[in-house]
Amino acid sequence: MTERIYTAGLVVIGDEILSGRTHDKNIAQIASWLQVQGIRLSEVRVVPDVVERIVEAVNALREAYDYLFTTGGIGPTHDDITVDAVAEALGVPVIIHPEARAILERYYASIGKELTEARLRMARAPEGAELIPNRMSGAPGIKLGNIHLMAGVPHITAGMLDALTGTLEGGAPLQSETVGCWTPESEIADILRQVEQAHETCQIGSYPFFREGRVGANFVVRSTNSEDLRSCVDSLCDGLATAGFDFTPGGI
Amino acid sequence: MTERIYTAGLVVIGDEILSGRTHDKNIAQIASWLQVQGIRLSEVRVVPDVVERIVEAVNALREAYDYLFTTGGIGPTHDDITVDAVAEALGVPVIIHPEARAILERYYASIGKELTEARLRMARAPEGAELIPNRMSGAPGIKLGNIHLMAGVPHITAGMLDALTGTLEGGAPLQSETVGCWTPESEIADILRQVEQAHETCQIGSYPFFREGRVGANFVVRSTNSEDLRSCVDSLCDGLATAGFDFTPGGI
Repeated sequence: MTERIYTAGLVVIGDEILSGRTHDKNIAQIASWLQVQGIRLSEVRVVPDVVERIVEAVNALREAYDYLFTTGGIGPTHDDITVDAVAEALGVPVIIHPEARAILERYYASIGKELTEARLRMARAPEGAELIPNRMSGAPGIKLGNIHLMAGVPHITAGMLDALTGTLEGGAPLQSETVGCWTPESEIADILRQVEQAHETCQIGSYPFFREGRVGANFVVRSTNSEDLRSCVDSLCDGLATAGFDFTPGGI
Repeated sequence: MTERIYTAGLVVIGDEILSGRTHDKNIAQIASWLQVQGIRLSEVRVVPDVVERIVEAVNALREAYDYLFTTGGIGPTHDDITVDAVAEALGVPVIIHPEARAILERYYASIGKELTEARLRMARAPEGAELIPNRMSGAPGIKLGNIHLMAGVPHITAGMLDALTGTLEGGAPLQSETVGCWTPESEIADILRQVEQAHETCQIGSYPFFREGRVGANFVVRSTNSEDLRSCVDSLCDGLATAGFDFTPGGI
């Protein structure tokens, strides 16, 4: 029986990533979280703060994958246009979400500030959307169909992911085990290929590194089936031992 | 006179990025390097180690932008399939590049090792390609038309970028200046919008942060014209001062 694989796409919205000014942390954060939900991140697109470019990426990825996430562009300033772009992609109007407005009113009252016109921008949502709670700053994320709009600031997105944990349907989580060697990956290439070919539900990735003046590589075996994973890792370790290579279970 | 804007796309090839195991560093590194060359990174796609997916992304981005960069998948192991995918995208065969073979022969002789079949994989290139020198490990990057295949390991890619510096035609580099405020961006939103509207060759990005228990934001003004940039930053600082906000030229 082949198990259904659930997939997700991610659109990272941000001139600051494309300029190199900000190092993205959301790709790795969302990827790791999705793994635990049994969902595989299958594609990421980073696009600039331009409505047409966001619309194009959102439409391509929401149709290609089970879930779509976006990060960035849901704050109060003029360059926050994600809500407008997603509404346009879906062909629905932008509304002031009453629940989001109430959340923002309470939040700003609690810190002794007013809900200005600019802050009220953070209550805008495509019609029909639900909210994703954000305990950090009041301004919620937005969920509409298979689309999830998250913040650009990584720790705010972390809180939104936390709120979503366990709410998305997924398959068996992809499991992985790592074996490391202080050996150039080019010496291990034949063993890797043979072991992967003999274990069809498993994939082996080879990730070389250069540390402490020496080269090495970590080999990451991945499978949704824990027995196959075990068997593949055992074969890899046997192959390395037979060929006379030292290796470190768990990786280096 | 409107200046020509040179653009680039980047395809990041790597299951390890999509699994969350590895935090990508190449997007920021290549983005920053491109800025200095007067080229704007306009889109990034992260795709898995699957030939058809790489072919699709390479074809989409090499046609949409002046330059295309890829990172990852040019090593010696079975999961290194970037050369095959790019050759397929261009409809040319894969060959053993004679110069790359000679480089690898010299490199491995210099460290007392043999050029095995697996290592020789690193001399494979789409027919017609030139090499991009790699002083770190011998294995070269590959340049063919507007496509540049770089390593996945960031410090090796850094060396390849260094070798390419000044060789690509670009426009005026995008310049930027930053102004920081220990104030929630929602309080500044109106000023930002007005200042940006008054300076049509400039863009202002607003990047909120939460540090030391306080919220603030950096406002990044970008333009290819240094006079316009100066004038826009001055207007922004005047606007902030008039409204009574403390600000930090250069950013926080």
